[in-house]
Amino acid sequence: MAVVQNKSIISRNDNFAEWYTSIVKKADLIDYSNMKGSMIIRPYGYAIWENIQKILDDEFKKTGHENVQMPMFIPESLLNIEKEHVEGFAPEVAWVTHGGDEELEERVCVRPTSETLFCEHYKKIIKSYRDLPKLYNQWCTIVRWEKTTRPFLRSREILWQEGHTMHATSEEAIEETLRMLKIYKDFQRNYLALPVIVGEKTDKEKFAGAEKTYTLEAMMYDGVALQNGTSHYFGNHFAKAFGIQFLNKDNKLETPYQTSWGVSTRMIGAIIMTHGDDLGLVLPPKIAPIKVAIIPIGKYDENSKTSKVINELVQSLKEKGITYKIDDSDKTPGYKFAEAEVKGYPIRIEIGPRDLEKDEITLVRRDTLEKIKVDIKSAISKIESLLDTIQNDMYNRALERRNSMLYFAKDYDEMKKIAKEKPGFIKINWCGDVACENKIKDDLGLKSRCIPKDDHEPTGPCAVCGKDAVCQIYFGKQY
Amino acid sequence: MAVVQNKSIISRNDNFAEWYTSIVKKADLIDYSNMKGSMIIRPYGYAIWENIQKILDDEFKKTGHENVQMPMFIPESLLNIEKEHVEGFAPEVAWVTHGGDEELEERVCVRPTSETLFCEHYKKIIKSYRDLPKLYNQWCTIVRWEKTTRPFLRSREILWQEGHTMHATSEEAIEETLRMLKIYKDFQRNYLALPVIVGEKTDKEKFAGAEKTYTLEAMMYDGVALQNGTSHYFGNHFAKAFGIQFLNKDNKLETPYQTSWGVSTRMIGAIIMTHGDDLGLVLPPKIAPIKVAIIPIGKYDENSKTSKVINELVQSLKEKGITYKIDDSDKTPGYKFAEAEVKGYPIRIEIGPRDLEKDEITLVRRDTLEKIKVDIKSAISKIESLLDTIQNDMYNRALERRNSMLYFAKDYDEMKKIAKEKPGFIKINWCGDVACENKIKDDLGLKSRCIPKDDHEPTGPCAVCGKDAVCQIYFGKQY
Repeated sequence: MAVVQNKSIISRNDNFAEWYTSIVKKADLIDYSNMKGSMIIRPYGYAIWENIQKILDDEFKKTGHENVQMPMFIPESLLNIEKEHVEGFAPEVAWVTHGGDEELEERVCVRPTSETLFCEHYKKIIKSYRDLPKLYNQWCTIVRWEKTTRPFLRSREILWQEGHTMHATSEEAIEETLRMLKIYKDFQRNYLALPVIVGEKTDKEKFAGAEKTYTLEAMMYDGVALQNGTSHYFGNHFAKAFGIQFLNKDNKLETPYQTSWGVSTRMIGAIIMTHGDDLGLVLPPKIAPIKVAIIPIGKYDENSKTSKVINELVQSLKEKGITYKIDDSDKTPGYKFAEAEVKGYPIRIEIGPRDLEKDEITLVRRDTLEKIKVDIKSAISKIESLLDTIQNDMYNRALERRNSMLYFAKDYDEMKKIAKEKPGFIKINWCGDVACENKIKDDLGLKSRCIPKDDHEPTGPCAVCGKDAVCQIYFGKQY
Repeated sequence: MAVVQNKSIISRNDNFAEWYTSIVKKADLIDYSNMKGSMIIRPYGYAIWENIQKILDDEFKKTGHENVQMPMFIPESLLNIEKEHVEGFAPEVAWVTHGGDEELEERVCVRPTSETLFCEHYKKIIKSYRDLPKLYNQWCTIVRWEKTTRPFLRSREILWQEGHTMHATSEEAIEETLRMLKIYKDFQRNYLALPVIVGEKTDKEKFAGAEKTYTLEAMMYDGVALQNGTSHYFGNHFAKAFGIQFLNKDNKLETPYQTSWGVSTRMIGAIIMTHGDDLGLVLPPKIAPIKVAIIPIGKYDENSKTSKVINELVQSLKEKGITYKIDDSDKTPGYKFAEAEVKGYPIRIEIGPRDLEKDEITLVRRDTLEKIKVDIKSAISKIESLLDTIQNDMYNRALERRNSMLYFAKDYDEMKKIAKEKPGFIKINWCGDVACENKIKDDLGLKSRCIPKDDHEPTGPCAVCGKDAVCQIYFGKQY
């Protein structure tokens, strides 16, 4: 099944990390630059991000959110206002100290996240219950000065969106936190074909300054977790620290309740590491910038049947709004097929003289590599239904694989045995004590993923200490 | 005509600068933050930018451009590669010197523009004539550490797009430079209702490192120029400095030719300062986030005629894709009218009981404040045509005012007299010598705007030195 041109891709089963870094380059998603730790997102990679942005932005607007743009810099004194928050972020911020030749009176950091900027603004514009809720979002780049970086997964610059909302009551704010978590989950399921476990982070793992952090935990092909988005409920910690108050209906001063939520280009990493294979990228049709690659085989001129069939097909694809690309370059068919495979176009259409004699063309599914001969007349309806089938099959395969790597360990011996032998997530009963969480980290190198939203009632004592358990919780290695 | 709520807006004829800064705040376009020199773009301001982005991005894609995302940081050594370029930008870049607690081995600046980053990337991906042209664009934020800032006009952070392209021949690159200039000009004319003079910058005023800089010079209400976009032809200076080469069809190495072009949120400033009046913002319908404000007058319930008429109107507006806002708050009609005026909604619809008795509603044009009573049945078609009329009238009024402030001076005495007495642009015959350009700057405080693309043949000797002229050129004060 492998073809010459793709042999240089390492097998994902041999070395998943190398496979990943080779795929992101070979599929023309990214390139590196002299700016270490940052990446260049190339047109094909950026087109995926544009699709993601468009779909999510529509969802945000439908649920009443408005886009804004905050400054990119945060003065040090502003970052310092909420104590837990600054402790969480200060070690990894980039500090601007000079403007031209002049040293700044106060250094400013490039935003690692914008809670402090939004709070300062909300303090000015929220005066009355009539001003609530405030439902703001921004699409921007943030900076976290990481030591070790990997394209899309951990980068010094991250393209993301960050929603920041303020509400009159804690109930409303919690509702918002969960609403956005569901929007993220549905988006990842329906568009990215990613099954995720949603749940709550432990106190140890939650966002710096948050009261509750909800997370979407995806599992990559190698069984390692990728935190693929978070939604935070802040209570009114920040609002108090920033002195934000509003007059309620009884004309009394109250402090509002806050949320924030974000997803990033990391989702592109999750797509690659969940669906990709040894031939390259495999993109879910609903997010693929190019859904169909048309590859004519053999020479043909303007008046040939090949030309006529391509023209008719293109017309139909346009009418249906299905994006396509025709590869009529002078490369060999084998080279073109390999390229279509590396790029992960969901369907490749081969148009060759032998098929045409029978009024047929060949559709090749990227996800299964299955070849399907179809009558030219019914090609467009078959393409349409096949795109749906591919989308669904990709999700189901990812779900099946993910489920096959979910384990339950009733005690610590069992947990250690699984952790040693099998990649994936291990669910245990937990007493809620950080000491047990730390022990697992130290002994087994596993971090808590989340207390799942569903199925979290304890079924026995804590797997670590044997005391009464308060919940079930997932552990796993992480990117 | 003035109403109570807007009295706090200074008249634009009394103090244009204060009028401007009061409008941007009162219309909820921006807010200030602790981060000096940066602004917060609020939802209403950002919605204008989103409209601009959508329209221009479509134009860029239609002409074959692809979006990418380069790093936000430039290592000092990379910025230093092209000499003129670094001299132009180094004095106003923001330097990042620390990541967390650690001092960086090499400091990096936040991009003031991205020629150097694109060149470094192009060097890696351009190998053959088959790789050309490369037509890349990015939407991003750039930073220039300005001393004096004004919202939208001169800010430390600028939201913009920057196109960077590479071509096999200088002819193709020049063609691209002019193509993008035309796209900008048409966009500003057709959507923003802004007349602009397009032309070439002098050597003194051109972009640092460019061979030719083309500019779009808009004139604000007060006669002062706003450079509202530029398109640069670089020749192959940068390509040579970065060692970019490709194999041509004859298998020989050649150096490609380069362009860059950009417009920014400054265009929002131009809209405000061209069309705004003493009551607030006046937005061209084609760029207005909300085209119609519906204001019911008097109390009404669900079963009233007012409700019925609003529902029918909303249905029609939705079908036509005309954005609207209903103000059914408990504020007084006068307050609502004033607010609709400050926000610059192109049409305000007043729905009152007296009009309804005659099956009429009242449309109020924001640009002229004219009140038009229309039969309910024909309201939607009238609204549609009125939006077109307003768009055209706004352009024509701006053009007329602009033209009334264009002057020609045949000699230096005349130029000095006009410069002293009248705001606007002064056209003169010019010998092409920077000494004359500098003299005008020193004597009169006017900078050269551009050598217009049309009508630039000299009609007499240089207005300053009396020597033979090589062209006509505009001078004017600038923002």
